[in-house]
Amino acid sequence: MDATALWQRYQKWLYFHEGLGLYLDVSRMRFDDAFVESLQSKFEKAFADMTQLEKGAIANPDEDRMVGHYWLRNPDLAPTPELTQEIVNVVEQIEVFAEKVHTGAIHPPKAPRFTDIISIGIGGSALGPQFVAEALSPDFPPLAIHFIDNTDPAGIDRILTQLRNRLSSTLVLVTSKSGGTPEPRNGMIEVKKAYAGQNLDFSQYAIAITMSGSKLDKIGESEGWLASFPMYDWVGGRTSEMSTVGLVPAALQGIDIRGMLEGAKEMDDATRISDLKRNPAALLALSWYFAGNGKGEKDMVVLPYKDSLLLFSRYLQQLVMESLGKEKDLDGNVVHQGIAVYGNKGSTDQHAYVQQLRDGVSNFFATFIEVLQDRRNSSPEIEDGITSGDYLSGFLQGTRQALYENHRDSITVTIPQVNSRTVGAIIALYDRAVGLYASLVNINAYHQPGVEAGKKAAADILDLQKQVIGVLKAENTSLSLEELAQKANASDKIESIYKIVRHLHANQRSVLLDGNLRELNNLKVSWKS
Amino acid sequence: MDATALWQRYQKWLYFHEGLGLYLDVSRMRFDDAFVESLQSKFEKAFADMTQLEKGAIANPDEDRMVGHYWLRNPDLAPTPELTQEIVNVVEQIEVFAEKVHTGAIHPPKAPRFTDIISIGIGGSALGPQFVAEALSPDFPPLAIHFIDNTDPAGIDRILTQLRNRLSSTLVLVTSKSGGTPEPRNGMIEVKKAYAGQNLDFSQYAIAITMSGSKLDKIGESEGWLASFPMYDWVGGRTSEMSTVGLVPAALQGIDIRGMLEGAKEMDDATRISDLKRNPAALLALSWYFAGNGKGEKDMVVLPYKDSLLLFSRYLQQLVMESLGKEKDLDGNVVHQGIAVYGNKGSTDQHAYVQQLRDGVSNFFATFIEVLQDRRNSSPEIEDGITSGDYLSGFLQGTRQALYENHRDSITVTIPQVNSRTVGAIIALYDRAVGLYASLVNINAYHQPGVEAGKKAAADILDLQKQVIGVLKAENTSLSLEELAQKANASDKIESIYKIVRHLHANQRSVLLDGNLRELNNLKVSWKS
Repeated sequence: MDATALWQRYQKWLYFHEGLGLYLDVSRMRFDDAFVESLQSKFEKAFADMTQLEKGAIANPDEDRMVGHYWLRNPDLAPTPELTQEIVNVVEQIEVFAEKVHTGAIHPPKAPRFTDIISIGIGGSALGPQFVAEALSPDFPPLAIHFIDNTDPAGIDRILTQLRNRLSSTLVLVTSKSGGTPEPRNGMIEVKKAYAGQNLDFSQYAIAITMSGSKLDKIGESEGWLASFPMYDWVGGRTSEMSTVGLVPAALQGIDIRGMLEGAKEMDDATRISDLKRNPAALLALSWYFAGNGKGEKDMVVLPYKDSLLLFSRYLQQLVMESLGKEKDLDGNVVHQGIAVYGNKGSTDQHAYVQQLRDGVSNFFATFIEVLQDRRNSSPEIEDGITSGDYLSGFLQGTRQALYENHRDSITVTIPQVNSRTVGAIIALYDRAVGLYASLVNINAYHQPGVEAGKKAAADILDLQKQVIGVLKAENTSLSLEELAQKANASDKIESIYKIVRHLHANQRSVLLDGNLRELNNLKVSWKS
Repeated sequence: MDATALWQRYQKWLYFHEGLGLYLDVSRMRFDDAFVESLQSKFEKAFADMTQLEKGAIANPDEDRMVGHYWLRNPDLAPTPELTQEIVNVVEQIEVFAEKVHTGAIHPPKAPRFTDIISIGIGGSALGPQFVAEALSPDFPPLAIHFIDNTDPAGIDRILTQLRNRLSSTLVLVTSKSGGTPEPRNGMIEVKKAYAGQNLDFSQYAIAITMSGSKLDKIGESEGWLASFPMYDWVGGRTSEMSTVGLVPAALQGIDIRGMLEGAKEMDDATRISDLKRNPAALLALSWYFAGNGKGEKDMVVLPYKDSLLLFSRYLQQLVMESLGKEKDLDGNVVHQGIAVYGNKGSTDQHAYVQQLRDGVSNFFATFIEVLQDRRNSSPEIEDGITSGDYLSGFLQGTRQALYENHRDSITVTIPQVNSRTVGAIIALYDRAVGLYASLVNINAYHQPGVEAGKKAAADILDLQKQVIGVLKAENTSLSLEELAQKANASDKIESIYKIVRHLHANQRSVLLDGNLRELNNLKVSWKS
C-alpha cells in the first residue's frame, strides 16, 4: 500500500475518545472491507450478548453466575437498588478507611502510623494491584506495598526479613474470594506466625478482602480483624481491579480510586456503542480475530512504551489467556481457543526480542501502548532540539514502521498520560474487548475449569505425600522406590513418589535417600525418626 | 503411554549433574528414538561447530567476530595467554574494587559509604544484572541497585526522585559496549544533570563499563571517572552476564561472583560433551527442535517455581529470541527462524494463564524450573505434615501432569537451591543450548541485524522531527499536515509528521495544534515562539 493510501487508511480507522484523549489505531492490521463485512452478524450478536450480560443475565452458565464488574464503575447499572447502594457505600468506606490510616486515626497498637502493606493474594488478587501500584503509586506513597503472591517459602521469607524492623507498623491485606485458595491461605498462616514471633497481635494489623461468609471472612470475624471489605460472586478475579481487591490497596497507597472508576466508566460507555467503528473494544476484538483467524493463531505481543506500564502485559496475560483459553465452545464443541499474550516494555524490548519480531518467525501481532506526555516537567535537550522522550517516541514509530514493512501487523493505543483515569480506561477497554471477542468465537470468558483441575492435581500429590510418609514411618527399614510405591498402593505413581521423597530429603524432612542419585532403581528410601 | 513405560522413559532420559546437583528431565517431550536418530548428524555438526567457536573461530561471520563468552568462565580456553591473564585480572580488579566500596576505602566525596547504585544500561546490559539481582542479592545488600533501562523520561524521573536524598552516596554504573547506544547515553546525560543539580561532581560517582576506546570510554577518561571496566567485542550483550557487565553490579551487591563463574564453568564442561544423552544443553536443543519442528512452531513457556527466579524468563526471552529470531540462515536462505519465549513464575501463573496452557490453543511447550530447597530454615506445617513448600512442589507436579494428560509437552530443570553456582550454571546451560540449536537450524546466533534496522528507523524519525521543526519555525503561519509535509519534502510521511507534532504538542514544545483532533485533514499546525 503506498503512502497516500496508507494515510487514508490511518484516518479512516483512527478511533478517538475526546473525553479520555485516547486514540486507537488499527490501520496496521491488514484486514479489508470484505473481512469486516463478514463479521458483521457476529458483532451484532456480540453486542446483544454484552447488553444481556450488563443487565444481569447469567453470562457464566457453568457456575450459574452473573457477571457484574461493569456495575462497579457505574452502580446505577446494577440490577437492584440495594446493590447499587452497596457498591456506592463500599467505595466510600474504602476512602474513609484509607483516610483514617493516612492521618493515623487508625494506627498500629504501638506506633502512630502504618508505614507498609503486605498484600497477600494470587492471580486476580495480585496482578491488578501490582500493575496499578507500578503505574500509579506516588513516588513517596503514604504506605509502601509488598506482595506475597505465591506459596514460595523463600519468597515469603524475603519479604518478612526485609520488613522485620517495620512489621509492627505493617498492615496485612489478605485477599481471597473464597478464602480457600491454598496460596493466600499459606501466606496468611506464615505471616501470622511472623507477627506472633514479634509478640504482635495479628488481628490488629489484618484486613480481609473476601466474600461474605467465606472461610476467610469467618476467621477475620472470629479473630476481630481490623477491617473487612466484601468481594462478590459476580466479580471474577481477573476483572476485580475496580472492586475492593484493587481499590483498597490503591487507596491506601494514595492513588485516586475515583479517577480509576471514572475512567473505566467512560470507557464502558464508549464500548457499549453497537457500531464497530465507533467502539474501540470492538475494533480490538476485530483485530484479534483477524490476526489469529478467530483461532488464536497469532500471539499478542504487548509493548507499552512507558516504564510505569511495565506490568500491563502481565495483567493482560491473565485477563486474555484465562478468559479466552478454553477447550470447548458454548455449544460443547472442542475448539482449544485462546490467545497467547506476552511483552514487557519499549524501547527496552527493542534490545531484547524485537530482533525476532522483525526478522524471525511470524507468529504474532504487536500492540503498542503510547503515552504522549513524556514527564510531568519539561525535558532537557539531549541533542539539538531532541529530548530523551523524542527518542522513546522515535523508537515506537520506528519499530511499528519496521514491523509493517516486514508484514507484521500491529495495533497502537495512545493515551495522553499515565493517570488514574487512563489506567481505569485501558483496563476497561481490554476487559470489554475480551468479552466481545469471546462472543465472536462463542466461548464462556468467565469461567476457568482448567484452574480447578490443576488445584485437584496438586491436592492429589499432597495426599500421596501423606500416604508415603505414613508408609515410611510404619516401616522400620529402607525401601526401594518400587517397594515404597507398592506399599502406598500407588505402583502407578512411582515417579511422583520419587519426586516427593527427593523434595522431602532436600528439606531435611526426616526422609533419607541412599544410593547413587543417578540410578533411581537402586535408591533406598527410609525414615529417620 | 502407561505408567510403567512412562517411568522407564523418565529414567532413561533423566540427566543428572552430580557436581551441581542439577537434573534435566525431557521425558515429557514426546519424541521417539527414530526422531533422535534423525538428528544425529546435525548434532555431530553442532558439536563440531561449538568446538571451533570455543577455539576462537569467527562464529559471527557478519560482524567478523569471535564469540568468547565461554572464556570468561574458563580463562585457560582463551586463544592467547595475554587474554587469559587479562580475564583473570579483571575479575580480581572487580573484587578488589567492590571490597573497597564495601569497606568505605572508596567512598563518595562527602559521605563515608556508598549506599545505592544506579545502573544505566539496556538489553544485555540490564536483563542479566536484573535477573541476578533478583535471584541472588542478599536481603540487605551493601548497596541497593536501581535500574534505568530505557529512555523514558518519567521512568528516569521516578528513580532520581526516589533517590534524591541519597544521590550524594549513589554510585552510577554506565554500561554500554559501544557507548553510542542512545538509551544509556540519554540516561547518562539526564543522571549527570541531576548530580549537577545537587552540586555533586558526577565524575566522583561514575563508573564506565565499555569497550576500550569507545565514546563512553573517552568520556570517562577525559572527565576522570571513578573507575572503568572493560567490555570486549567477543562478548555479545545477551551473553555478557559473566563479563564486567554482570560481575561489577553483582560484586557491589555482595553476590559471590566466583561462585557464578564456577557454576557456569562446570556447566560449560558438561555441555562440551559430544554425546547427546550426556549433554544437557544438547537435550534442550533436541527438545526445542522436536517441539517446534525445527521452525519455532511452538512458543517456549518458562515457569520457574521460585519467586527469586521470576526474571529468568525475561532473561531467556532476550537470549533465545534475539539469538534465534533470524530472517536468513547461514546459506542466505530466507527462513524466518526463532522461538518465542514468555513466562513469569509458578504457582502464580497457575492463576494467570495455566487455564489456557491446559485447555486452550496448543501452541507451546513448557519448561518448569524446580528448586528442591524450599527455604534456608525449616518450614512450619500449614496442615498436618504439609508445608507451604510442599504446596509449591505439588502445584508444579500437578501442572506438569495435567499438561501431559492434555498432550502438552514439557521439560523440567531441577536445581538444589538458588545460589551463585546454580544461577551461573543455568545461564551457561541455556546459552549453550541456544548455540547448539542455532547450529541445528543453521543460523548465526550471534548477530542482530534487525536491532540495527530498528535504530536506523528511529533515527529517521528524529531527523524528520528536526526538519519539521525547521519548517514550522521558518513559516510564520499555521499549516495543514499536508502543507507541512510538502514543505518538509516528506509528502510520503504525513502520518509520521502528524505523530511528531502530536507528541511535541502534548509536551508543550512550542507546537500548537488547532482544530478538531478527530479530523486530521483539518488540523492546523503552527509554531509558538
